[in-house]
Amino acid sequence: MTDPLVVFTPSGKRGRIPAGTTVLAAARRLGVDLDSVCGGRGICSKCQVTPGKGAYPKHGVTVAEGALSPVNAVEQRYDEKRGLAPGRRLGCQACIEGDIVVDVPRESQVHKQVVRKAASDRAITLDPSTRLHFVTVEEPDMDAPSGDLERLRAALKAQWEIEGLTVPLPILQALQTVLRKGDWKVTVAVNHETSSVAAIWPGLRTDAPLGLAVDLGSTTVAAHLCDLGTGAVLASGGVMNPQIRFGEDLMSRVSYSMMNPGGAAEMTGAIRVALADLARELAEEAGIAPADIVETVIVCNPVMHHLLIGVDPVELGQSPFALATSDALRLPARDLGLDVLAPGARAYILPCIAGHVGADAAAVALSEAPDQVEEMTLIVDVGTNAELLLGNSKGLLACSSPTGPAFEGAQISSGQRAAPGAIERVEIDPETKEPRFRVIGSELWSDDPAFDGTEITGICGSGIIEAVAEMRLAGLLDAGGLIGSAEQTGSARCVAEGRTHSYLLWEADGRRILVTQGDVRAIQLAKSALYAGARLLMDEAGVDSVDRVTLAGAFGAHISPRHAMVLGMIPDAPLDKVGSAGNAAGHGARMALCDRSLRDRIEGLVRRIHKVETAVAPRFQEHFVAANAIPHATAPFPHLGPLPQVSFNQQSGGRRRRRS
Amino acid sequence: MTDPLVVFTPSGKRGRIPAGTTVLAAARRLGVDLDSVCGGRGICSKCQVTPGKGAYPKHGVTVAEGALSPVNAVEQRYDEKRGLAPGRRLGCQACIEGDIVVDVPRESQVHKQVVRKAASDRAITLDPSTRLHFVTVEEPDMDAPSGDLERLRAALKAQWEIEGLTVPLPILQALQTVLRKGDWKVTVAVNHETSSVAAIWPGLRTDAPLGLAVDLGSTTVAAHLCDLGTGAVLASGGVMNPQIRFGEDLMSRVSYSMMNPGGAAEMTGAIRVALADLARELAEEAGIAPADIVETVIVCNPVMHHLLIGVDPVELGQSPFALATSDALRLPARDLGLDVLAPGARAYILPCIAGHVGADAAAVALSEAPDQVEEMTLIVDVGTNAELLLGNSKGLLACSSPTGPAFEGAQISSGQRAAPGAIERVEIDPETKEPRFRVIGSELWSDDPAFDGTEITGICGSGIIEAVAEMRLAGLLDAGGLIGSAEQTGSARCVAEGRTHSYLLWEADGRRILVTQGDVRAIQLAKSALYAGARLLMDEAGVDSVDRVTLAGAFGAHISPRHAMVLGMIPDAPLDKVGSAGNAAGHGARMALCDRSLRDRIEGLVRRIHKVETAVAPRFQEHFVAANAIPHATAPFPHLGPLPQVSFNQQSGGRRRRRS
Repeated sequence: MTDPLVVFTPSGKRGRIPAGTTVLAAARRLGVDLDSVCGGRGICSKCQVTPGKGAYPKHGVTVAEGALSPVNAVEQRYDEKRGLAPGRRLGCQACIEGDIVVDVPRESQVHKQVVRKAASDRAITLDPSTRLHFVTVEEPDMDAPSGDLERLRAALKAQWEIEGLTVPLPILQALQTVLRKGDWKVTVAVNHETSSVAAIWPGLRTDAPLGLAVDLGSTTVAAHLCDLGTGAVLASGGVMNPQIRFGEDLMSRVSYSMMNPGGAAEMTGAIRVALADLARELAEEAGIAPADIVETVIVCNPVMHHLLIGVDPVELGQSPFALATSDALRLPARDLGLDVLAPGARAYILPCIAGHVGADAAAVALSEAPDQVEEMTLIVDVGTNAELLLGNSKGLLACSSPTGPAFEGAQISSGQRAAPGAIERVEIDPETKEPRFRVIGSELWSDDPAFDGTEITGICGSGIIEAVAEMRLAGLLDAGGLIGSAEQTGSARCVAEGRTHSYLLWEADGRRILVTQGDVRAIQLAKSALYAGARLLMDEAGVDSVDRVTLAGAFGAHISPRHAMVLGMIPDAPLDKVGSAGNAAGHGARMALCDRSLRDRIEGLVRRIHKVETAVAPRFQEHFVAANAIPHATAPFPHLGPLPQVSFNQQSGGRRRRRS
Repeated sequence: MTDPLVVFTPSGKRGRIPAGTTVLAAARRLGVDLDSVCGGRGICSKCQVTPGKGAYPKHGVTVAEGALSPVNAVEQRYDEKRGLAPGRRLGCQACIEGDIVVDVPRESQVHKQVVRKAASDRAITLDPSTRLHFVTVEEPDMDAPSGDLERLRAALKAQWEIEGLTVPLPILQALQTVLRKGDWKVTVAVNHETSSVAAIWPGLRTDAPLGLAVDLGSTTVAAHLCDLGTGAVLASGGVMNPQIRFGEDLMSRVSYSMMNPGGAAEMTGAIRVALADLARELAEEAGIAPADIVETVIVCNPVMHHLLIGVDPVELGQSPFALATSDALRLPARDLGLDVLAPGARAYILPCIAGHVGADAAAVALSEAPDQVEEMTLIVDVGTNAELLLGNSKGLLACSSPTGPAFEGAQISSGQRAAPGAIERVEIDPETKEPRFRVIGSELWSDDPAFDGTEITGICGSGIIEAVAEMRLAGLLDAGGLIGSAEQTGSARCVAEGRTHSYLLWEADGRRILVTQGDVRAIQLAKSALYAGARLLMDEAGVDSVDRVTLAGAFGAHISPRHAMVLGMIPDAPLDKVGSAGNAAGHGARMALCDRSLRDRIEGLVRRIHKVETAVAPRFQEHFVAANAIPHATAPFPHLGPLPQVSFNQQSGGRRRRRS
């Protein structure tokens, strides 16, 4: 008599399995993705399946009565206690007795694709590194002495066929207490990627383990706390990078390290404390213990990367900008000061692309996948140091550009970071030259009567970009970036400040928010750097235009594509092809957290990316200078339409002309 | 034309090797043990060989002129600069041109047996885990950016075929500086057992790496700093275990941990600081940097073991005495607080045999190898907690016995640890009942006229044992352990102290050193425990006598076999078969440090040792009570000869008899 034929759906995996085998064992033998934490003891309910009935011509199977063993006492008790949906069976209890089709519902699959709205609307496949394994450990026997750890290892081998695990010292230190508290029954979180134990809890634990995706920026640190069983984001949050007190931008932090012995270690300590605090806060918000976080994935630029792992970033501040290490790092999280996580929690840090293009850019590449489309795509991760990717399925180029912190509201006369009270949107009427604006924390425009009384504290990055672009559109600013006088523009809001003019955006109670000539110059420098980087990549790729522009970064999400193009921050592209990817780096971190197979993917992709170093490219300087105009003058903007033809000299037309 | 035949001596390994191959490459291909640090660059001189001449009938080879390429410029320069012994060639330069016999001198072998006198006279084979590899690393290239670490990995692979190394974070943190300091030439210490980088130094380093063998006892911590290239002990030293302030013996430390939250962590911190300090001191004594120590091997009893790795020892204080882990541990040394060693230094801790029989007993088994002889051998590692091994090539038994600290001079009225000024040897004239003694730090007996003025501070463990045994031999003490009165013994040195008597060993300037009745009782308890343990193992083994008794431990080295037998500490055995093994545990640690193959050996042996738990064995109690007499009464002592037949009651004959 031949063994019964078993077909699993939706995978379609099939094979002959001896009668009397449980569905769970059959699934394992055929490589079918069927979850289980308790290892077949009928207590975790993760292995629920739906057996088929009747004929399945497609599979060539007719399921007869009695193809599975009858519902047994374990299943009855489970049904009474917790309820089993109609038609469902526990895979570890139901035994195969005849030909059968077994459906594995989505919630019983370990690897499942989920679409999450909270942090982004993109799909994430679940295949986390860390899985839970419930084991019963033999009690110690004085007459055959062996260590508790050795008996735990024996149990993992006998009950799960898991061998050769690394057991970090903190796990070993807690082991005896946990085993006794769980009465020799424990749940072990195993990181299968590194073959190490991440955590151990007394008794059966069926809650999925948790992971932390971190986007460590020069200015802000953002993190998502994720449920690794569902991909759900349980809590998200951010803090300022405390290293700001050592320097606003990357190079000033490198300088701080160069000038101060122990400076790098000081910055390393600061960011590690901030990360641990953030993990603690998110855990509290989600109502879990930080020690339930078994894994973290971190993305960051190279300087943040080196400071996080405790490497002095001095080499990144000078040619040839050598990274200490470029490959992805898999480390014990406690080596990064994250003792607050599970005692054996692991950290995965994405690979760096080059000395100025970091793991954050790698995460953006993972998230946006420009390598999987035909369109020539430019991705700009806007930050204190902008990182740029250009390419398509035929190849990818990357570089970074030192835009400075102007886009984040720093070095702007009334600038501030994006926080309640900051002006974030600006419109200027081309006729009256009167502005209206919105501030973070309010849905109202400033010309709405209900707006009165809203607190106004300054202007943030997206606000200053819109303000400068609107000034250009309203004819208050010429292509060279000069603000016209009240006489030249016909607007009393253009007020003289020394030898230049400023545009008065808002005034009340003796407080004023101005866009000064210096502000415009700062934005011009920043946007020229950004454009020059993009242009350099286009030269390398041998293209004169791009099909699509994606603005990434938390800040990129708030820039209006049209205003960005008016400024000449980005090359010309159809306006409907210019979009924001939100925090793509953070999303990439979350993808690599939830799906470990993506780690191989990004590591392979990073090896194939062609890196372009802007710092020593003469053409970068040329492009930078040429991109100073608003918009820049190095390429036409067919998608933008005509802008006002105005030209202001600094004090009077004559003097300016004489000088130039 | 067939390739030349190459025969290496003394290994006898042979094979045909294409003409033009270097001797070093040929050795590698044939698996011949020929050292090299520089990897064939002709600068380290480790690969020196002696080519043969003429006919070798045994090997079937006749070496013709020109069988090796002529001495080349590299060899000439080396000879001029540092001198090459006559007939020697550099294996990395000399190329095979015809059939040849090549001798690999002992100093060019990596694995060599050496006999070291400094720490013991036993042979040690050299096959350390850590080897040095000199590499030239490619410089960073801005146009093809990669991390310094990745280029180091590429160099190790290309130049040494070494792949997949773990690089600990502290190595990565120092990497950039070292590479630049060495002008992209560095020497990497690779721990081949754990496939990890232990250290990295700029330039070529030909000094052998160093290792630290540690015997971590409850009372003292002893360590040897060893040259892993020669096996030489460069420095030895010891410190008191600072945990003594938390409790003199093991169980009082376990109690301290039970009664004081955080007590275990406190003790862990104390011993780690002491170990690091000791490493620093030995390095200073040897004139090297502690960071040149690339490996450490540690042996200790289970309580010390758990406290060292940071596990609360509470389970070891109660039945069933479960170890947290019994297998050997391979850990980063920095996880044990030994950051002072090389940044990637590894620690190897020998396996524990049972809850009361530790890695120190395993080290004794490794050093004394009772499993390799036919004689029924009893090995006693005398300490605060004695560990006993009994057996021969047919099998081994182990147990521990709670002797308490009396053997170490504690709980003795004038007791002190073995240090200058302590009485260590005692003789009592059987006629006059007058004593003479020697103190540590002096070669003279106390009855030597030149002895006058020698400082006398107390009595140490070996001193009190000899004193009690000599009192028994001189008829001052009866078999029950009672000290006779001055009338009963005829010695005025037997002075009354309350209801009992004491023997006055020394008196001067108002200071007295007495052996009190309490001292004798403490020694009786300790020796009864020791004997009961030995007896229990003999019962298990089914033997009534042993062929050989080895006293191990630093203290064991100072006990006179005859006095030990008079006391009944050990079973009867021919006196010439009772000997001391010195610090066998420390020697075992040194063996496992110098020869990594012994780690497998001891791990296998420990699995085969049968463990006997004394704490719950009713027969242990019986043996303990029966062993109270001096010598014990449970077995005859044919090798000892008759002892004085005296019997003293406590105050007077009548009272004692009435009571019993």
